[in-house]
This record gives sequence, C-alpha cells and structure tokens, in this order.
Amino acid sequence: MVRKNHRFTLAARPTGLVKSTDFTFEEEAVRELGDRELLVQIRYISLDPAMRGWMNEGKSYIRPVAIGEVMRAGAIGSVIESRHPGFAVGTPVLGTFGMQEYAISNGEGVLPIDPRLSPGLVPLPVMLSTLGMPGLTAYFGLLDIGKPVAGNTVVVSGAAGAVGSVVGQIAKIQGCRAVGIAGGADKCRYLTELGFDAAIDYKAGDIKDALRQHCPQGIDVFFDNVGGDILDAALARLAPRARIIICGAISQYNNTAPVKGPSNYLSLLVNRASMTGMVVFDYAARYPAAIAEMAQWVAAGKLRSREDIVRGLDQFPHALLKLFTGENHGKLMLELPA
Amino acid sequence: MVRKNHRFTLAARPTGLVKSTDFTFEEEAVRELGDRELLVQIRYISLDPAMRGWMNEGKSYIRPVAIGEVMRAGAIGSVIESRHPGFAVGTPVLGTFGMQEYAISNGEGVLPIDPRLSPGLVPLPVMLSTLGMPGLTAYFGLLDIGKPVAGNTVVVSGAAGAVGSVVGQIAKIQGCRAVGIAGGADKCRYLTELGFDAAIDYKAGDIKDALRQHCPQGIDVFFDNVGGDILDAALARLAPRARIIICGAISQYNNTAPVKGPSNYLSLLVNRASMTGMVVFDYAARYPAAIAEMAQWVAAGKLRSREDIVRGLDQFPHALLKLFTGENHGKLMLELPA
Repeated sequence: MVRKNHRFTLAARPTGLVKSTDFTFEEEAVRELGDRELLVQIRYISLDPAMRGWMNEGKSYIRPVAIGEVMRAGAIGSVIESRHPGFAVGTPVLGTFGMQEYAISNGEGVLPIDPRLSPGLVPLPVMLSTLGMPGLTAYFGLLDIGKPVAGNTVVVSGAAGAVGSVVGQIAKIQGCRAVGIAGGADKCRYLTELGFDAAIDYKAGDIKDALRQHCPQGIDVFFDNVGGDILDAALARLAPRARIIICGAISQYNNTAPVKGPSNYLSLLVNRASMTGMVVFDYAARYPAAIAEMAQWVAAGKLRSREDIVRGLDQFPHALLKLFTGENHGKLMLELPA
Repeated sequence: MVRKNHRFTLAARPTGLVKSTDFTFEEEAVRELGDRELLVQIRYISLDPAMRGWMNEGKSYIRPVAIGEVMRAGAIGSVIESRHPGFAVGTPVLGTFGMQEYAISNGEGVLPIDPRLSPGLVPLPVMLSTLGMPGLTAYFGLLDIGKPVAGNTVVVSGAAGAVGSVVGQIAKIQGCRAVGIAGGADKCRYLTELGFDAAIDYKAGDIKDALRQHCPQGIDVFFDNVGGDILDAALARLAPRARIIICGAISQYNNTAPVKGPSNYLSLLVNRASMTGMVVFDYAARYPAAIAEMAQWVAAGKLRSREDIVRGLDQFPHALLKLFTGENHGKLMLELPA
C-alpha cells in the first residue's frame, strides 16, 4: 500500500497579508524510510504569527522557508513506522513537521511526549499551546527577561492569544498584578475568566487612558506581542527600571510600509528601563523542566488554556489569516483525522 | 563690599532650538551667607546636550528648570566664603552651581575635588569632562550596561563628543574594537588620533554601508548619544546578544515633530539583543571609585580629552547652540575669570 501525503508548499513570498495563492497544495506518495528515519502521522498543526516572518526573504533568527519547500509548522503526531532506534511505533511526538499529513524525519529536534503528561495529565492539543512553543515563549520571556517580582504590574499585549494568556496567568502565579490588552469585549471577558486583574480593549477607547487607569504605579514588566501604537502607549507608562520583552509585533508583520518604530523609546532613558528581544528556541535545553513545571500548574487548575481547533489540512491558509484579523479565540491549530 | 552676581535665568520654554530670548541675563547683589552655607566663585561651567531636556515641561528623570530659576548647569569653582564646617575657604569644588558667577550652597551634592587629582594629576577643565559627568556617563554606561568583552566591536555615536570620545577610549582599554560615528572629517580625524579603530563620517556617505564595512562581525555594543537614523542603522547591524545603551538622542532634542522611533527595533528580537536607558546620577555612590580609576588612565595617557573652552558667561546661550549644530570640538564649557 502506498500512502498519499497532502502538503502545502510555499509558492510565492507574500506582500502584505498572506493569500492562498502564496501556497501550492500538493499530493505525493510517501516514500520508503531510509535507515534511522521515522514516519510521523500528523494529528495537530500549530498556526502561529511567526509563520508570516518565515515566509519573508532575508536574514532573521531562522532561515526563510524556501520556495517549493513544505511550509514550516510545529506539530504533534504519532510515529507510525520507524527505522530509528530512538523512536518506537506508537510514540506521540512533537516536532517541526510542517504543513502536511505525514512527515519523514531523522529524529533531529523531535521530542517524544512524556506519556505521564499527555494524554495523561493534559490533552494533546494543550501540548501545542500552553505546554508547547507559545507557553514556553511566555514562560522564558516573562521569567527570564521580565524577572517579575511579587507586587509588580505586568502588562501583556495580544493577551488573549496563545502566548499572552499564559504570560498573564504566570504573572498571577508569581504574585503580580496582571493587565491584558486585547481586541474586543469577548477576548477581554476571557482574560477576566483567566484571572487577569484588568483587561483593556484596545478597540474600545484610548489605550493610554486605560493604562493610566489600570496601572496607577506604572508598568514594571511589559510583554509585547503586538508592537505599533500599543508598544508606544506602554512605553509612555513605564515604571522606573521597567523591563520590556519584545516577543513579536503582529501589528507590523503584514506591513508593506516600513515598520513603525516606537517613538516613545526615550522613555527607556527617563525610566532606566530595558527592552530585550527573545526567541524561544534559545531555551531548548530547558524545555523539559519548564514543561514539567507548567504541567503541574495545568493540573492544579492555575494555568488554563483555550484552543481554537480548525478541522482539516485544507483549511490552511485560510485559517492562518484569522491570526492577523484577530478572529481566533485561543491557540489556533489544525486537527487532522486520526 | 557687595559682590555682584551675573546669571542666566530661564525666561521661556523653547520650541525647537534654544534662542537667546529663552533666557534673561540678570545682575543681583550676592546676599550674606546663612549658617552652614558656602559661597562658590565659579570658574568653569559645563554645557551639555541634556540642558535642552531640562528646559522642557513634563515628567522626566529630573524636574524641569522653573521659569525665573537660574539655568541648571554643572560647574567647578572655589569656595571663597564659608559658614559650613565641611568646606574650607580655598577648596576647589564640583557641583550643580548653575549658569552664573557665584553660587550659594548648603553643601548638598557639592564634591570637593581631590587635590591629588586636580590640579595635581589632571587640569581643572578635565574634571568637568573626562572625570566629570560626561566621562562618568561613558564609564558606567559602557561598563555596567554594555558589558564589553575583549574582542567585542563597540560602536558609539556622537563619538567626538565629551561622552562618546571617552566611550571609545574605554572600549580600547577593555580590549575591544572601537568604531566611532561623528559628523565631518575633522571630528573623524580626532577619533583616529584618540585610537579608535575606525571613524565613520555620517555626513560623507551611507552609514549602513560604513557600518557593514567597519563591523564585519556585527555590533556587540552600541552606545547611542544621537538617536534617529543612526540608531536605526546600528540596529540593522547588530550581532547576536548585542547591548544598546540609550544615553541620549541629540538628533531629536530640538524636534517640534514627534520623535522618530527606531523602525528597525525588531532587530532586538532577531538578535536577542537589548536596549537599555541610563542616567548617570543613579551611579553617584560609585563616582569616587570611577574617578580614581579614570584618573589613572588619564595619568597613563590612555584616556585623552579635548576641551572646547569658550570665555565669558555672556557667551551663553550662543555657545550652547554649538552642541546642536555640531560645531563644538571636544567638551564644551564656559570659562569665567579667576
């Protein structure tokens, strides 16, 4: 029996928002495994804002996806064939398997999922959200760079997203005041349900006024996923020695005009504050410990998540657009048939 | 005998560049000293880019100069009368004495100048430049925030200025490659004389090309005094884990339009780099140790300086403008008669 794989490859480098014509949907036969290779049947594929950056040419923290290459994506699946001694058939695995149904791997960068964690302790989709890249990004960005201290005011933009919602909840676990910025009443209600002390709807009024109201002592830690005017408003409200984590800038990813630089950056000087970029891949050696700690928080009900699960590989790239229009509610991912 | 003091008080908050009508030149009789007061005859008055910020209304790292108040300025003078037990007549002192000939002080924030240092080891004007606020700013900004390691490439903007020239020389002392950015061939020649490895004339060509040429391994530490396009060009050339020190933004101080934010700030993310503001006053407790260390470097000829000394109090505020037009060569100060 020859298995058929369906996949999306990059057809063109997009200008502005991604279009479906930027990808090619292909069918291919799954080839036979070579020595030390494994075949993964993919079950969940993560859709992330960072994907937009991977489609651009030019130097970045990771090489761009090549034209004709399978679109890069983090995913969870099961090993269904193996000629690799480290991976038994049936093992659930996490890896950068790409936007496709089946992936062949040499095992590099493939993490077996600890069966005590999932599906034992947490559902499989949570391994792609809170205990996956988004959760790890929140964990290391907030704790290692933000260095929050109990009593600090922690503000996060894109707060209803997969990273932001974890940032706010970990801030609460650390004894901080957590303020989330999100777009729309629904998302803000979600933040309150998660235990945020305040939720600011950036679509509903002046964000500077809202930050003044909800951060009377100023912002000690600002975790930025959004950039643009929101970053500028936060800069205007920093507390002395504030720490800003630059995790992303979703407001700027589809720009055709130059990125809007934060014109209030001199607030860094006035407040002796810092602004530091982070990329989660740098912390790979510490993933297992972080996942174990967060799994305890999940099990204790202190760290909750919501997944926005879209069924069917063919929904990509349409589903991806939801990230940039702000339509998704919770961690966006595709589910493929078991 | 009644002494007459001449002084400049702030008459108006400037828009854009400072005008002479923003100040009032006044004459007053020097009053008698109260208990625990001292009278200082001022000899040298520092002219600094930061003065422009002190003239603006609004929250900053230090309160604005009030309308009608003597313009704030760092200065060196001699105690000529004293009812303060801590200050004997004849003591040379450093303090924020203001833009005037005589200052009455209660001694707060007044530092006696160690006679072993000056005039013994270094000339008095150097106490306002390399061993004064500019030098201390360079010292703490570069060493504490920049954390340069031997072999690093350190780039400084405003490199021919009082702060920048010390930054480059301390970078060399630390075993780094020092690259200075300055405006004009004269200033660039000066940098080479001071031992900088390369000098970039931002008026002579594309600064991005020049940074590519002179920083083949990227920029590990960028000490920014200038902001604007120069900050953006440096951001585009960062090495992984680069440290940016935001010390000032002289290109933006006289703006009537909003400050230009650094549109390449996402390079912080790509390179896991940081951008941190600094204000020298935070390091006051460590001034004596830093001055002692730098005095040794001065004595050993490793740390050289040039002062641009303008004679006469009445030359203010005309002389101040030289800072913003880039006309000064070395640390700008006024000299008053002995």
